[in-house]
Amino acid sequence: MRAVVYRGREKLDITDVPEPPVGHGEVRLRVGVNGICGSDLHEYFAGPIFIPDGRPHPLTGRELPLTLGHEFSGTVVEVGPGVDGVTEGDRVAVMPLYSCGACPACTAGRPNVCAQIGFHGLMADGGMAETTVVPQHMLHLLPDEVSLEMGALVEPMSVAYHAARLGEVGPGSTAVVFGAGPIGIGLWFALRGTGVADVYVVEPSGPRRAAIERLGARTLDPGAVDVPAAVADLTHGRGADAAYDAAGVRAAVETATASVGNGRPTVSVAIYETPIETPLINLVMNESRIQGSLCYTAEDYAAVIALMARGHYDTTGWVERIAMTDVVAEGFEALRAGRRMKVLVDPAIA
Amino acid sequence: MRAVVYRGREKLDITDVPEPPVGHGEVRLRVGVNGICGSDLHEYFAGPIFIPDGRPHPLTGRELPLTLGHEFSGTVVEVGPGVDGVTEGDRVAVMPLYSCGACPACTAGRPNVCAQIGFHGLMADGGMAETTVVPQHMLHLLPDEVSLEMGALVEPMSVAYHAARLGEVGPGSTAVVFGAGPIGIGLWFALRGTGVADVYVVEPSGPRRAAIERLGARTLDPGAVDVPAAVADLTHGRGADAAYDAAGVRAAVETATASVGNGRPTVSVAIYETPIETPLINLVMNESRIQGSLCYTAEDYAAVIALMARGHYDTTGWVERIAMTDVVAEGFEALRAGRRMKVLVDPAIA
Repeated sequence: MRAVVYRGREKLDITDVPEPPVGHGEVRLRVGVNGICGSDLHEYFAGPIFIPDGRPHPLTGRELPLTLGHEFSGTVVEVGPGVDGVTEGDRVAVMPLYSCGACPACTAGRPNVCAQIGFHGLMADGGMAETTVVPQHMLHLLPDEVSLEMGALVEPMSVAYHAARLGEVGPGSTAVVFGAGPIGIGLWFALRGTGVADVYVVEPSGPRRAAIERLGARTLDPGAVDVPAAVADLTHGRGADAAYDAAGVRAAVETATASVGNGRPTVSVAIYETPIETPLINLVMNESRIQGSLCYTAEDYAAVIALMARGHYDTTGWVERIAMTDVVAEGFEALRAGRRMKVLVDPAIA
Repeated sequence: MRAVVYRGREKLDITDVPEPPVGHGEVRLRVGVNGICGSDLHEYFAGPIFIPDGRPHPLTGRELPLTLGHEFSGTVVEVGPGVDGVTEGDRVAVMPLYSCGACPACTAGRPNVCAQIGFHGLMADGGMAETTVVPQHMLHLLPDEVSLEMGALVEPMSVAYHAARLGEVGPGSTAVVFGAGPIGIGLWFALRGTGVADVYVVEPSGPRRAAIERLGARTLDPGAVDVPAAVADLTHGRGADAAYDAAGVRAAVETATASVGNGRPTVSVAIYETPIETPLINLVMNESRIQGSLCYTAEDYAAVIALMARGHYDTTGWVERIAMTDVVAEGFEALRAGRRMKVLVDPAIA
């Protein structure tokens, strides 16, 4: 079968690989589509970072070369021994986490911060292929209303949904999202989906503001307005009930912590490559906090799929499909250059 | 009467000033002792910062010149009209906060983060004087077991107690305190006083480690041990249940956020003069947080006084008294040079 195989920095082969066998407790999926994630970009342009190189991952036993892809949907085409309640033809989204089950995080019910966390598509052969083999526990059944394209977005939308929850907001709250990339868009959908009417998205890029405005969002241009002052006005001096940093840059951290209200959180859902100069005095002066958010839980997956089934998510204007052969030029390069926002690799496109 | 009057940066007069009248709802105190706070040092060497200069404070109507001192105890010597339940001779600690009562923070019951917060001794004539006049609501009666010297420490010890509470720890928890200055010492007493048996204090200075060890604390020398690894060992891989930054420097923030466990807080109780390079990725990877802490509430004052009445606090080796005339050389200069840790100005010393 064809697969996108990672061999190291800027070394991707679109090549034929053998189909792996289906083991106990596993199923084979025909991949629907597979999204390219920001972490895939980091691996391609600056990696290997998370992909094991020279030392197999403790939970999967694997290292590079590996098939990329951890944001994917698929259809069950083969059911291994010991798998119950799954049948050929089932359409699924995959929650691609491997966790150890034994560390303090896992035993506290937080597998998303497992000390040995692994991902299907970074520490095992993933979804940028015609098929992939996954353990049953990763499967989330898609209802008829949710397409395979939408199913591939469950993973990044769950990253955002999980972060949205850590903001501890609800009806009547005001939230401010920094960054209108895919996670920022996901935050907007998640917050609206959990009843937060007043969501403002702060984004310096005109095209990105336009894209999320077309989805219905209200935006603020930090180049044109004083964001903390604007948020204070919008909240009668109270400040935001939650701010979200989905940009991962100094200006966002600085502005978010200056916009959030007394005792409220700035949720960080970004991969910070280096330490960021952070005005911690902002946290002290109003007893606010910066709260990290990582990955998702099965509950987040279920909540996102339920919202998708109600038609809550809209891919118009920010999601595009490409062929596997175009993954470098139209995927990685286009994303890095900002020419596309979210790219799904579709093995069915010739 | 004699008072320490602040006129601007490095401009302090020890001089005679008129005794102010006692207004409605106010009492006059004969000052017991008055501690020099880190923020007083900032005002003296780098101010005016919080002290109003050229624009009166909205709640007190005052600007410099002002008598310094917001950490003080005293004895009631005159009771103004409209004051109930206070009599001459009462020994008190003073909670020196002015809050507006109308802003979102005040109406949410958080006067310690009032938008217009003021301090008696920064925005009104304070306790580095023979007497001072304060509104009744600032008074906290001292039981017989608590000396006036101890009473002057209620303020900084309440700053630490409040921060300790924001760590959400209790019996069975492990806490790590960064910095063994007066607030770090206060955190150690507060945590022990609320039942946290396992408290480790991280401090690079040998004399400061020795001082807090004499009070009973266990310490870690960050120059000699890998603190996050040591904390991981001490907690069976769980990480600290709370970390506290009472140092306000980059190394402490970096090490604290690397030492704290999944989903747990690093409480910041420091005045950060500039943004600090903060490894926010540490927060993301284990969903921990940095939580700001400012001042205290009346509940914190009551809790600290109750612990003091039980003999929980010990001033041995870290608290010294000086005469008002020595406030610059033996107070501000000695504190800045690290020759003393906590200095109380005693108007009764000639």
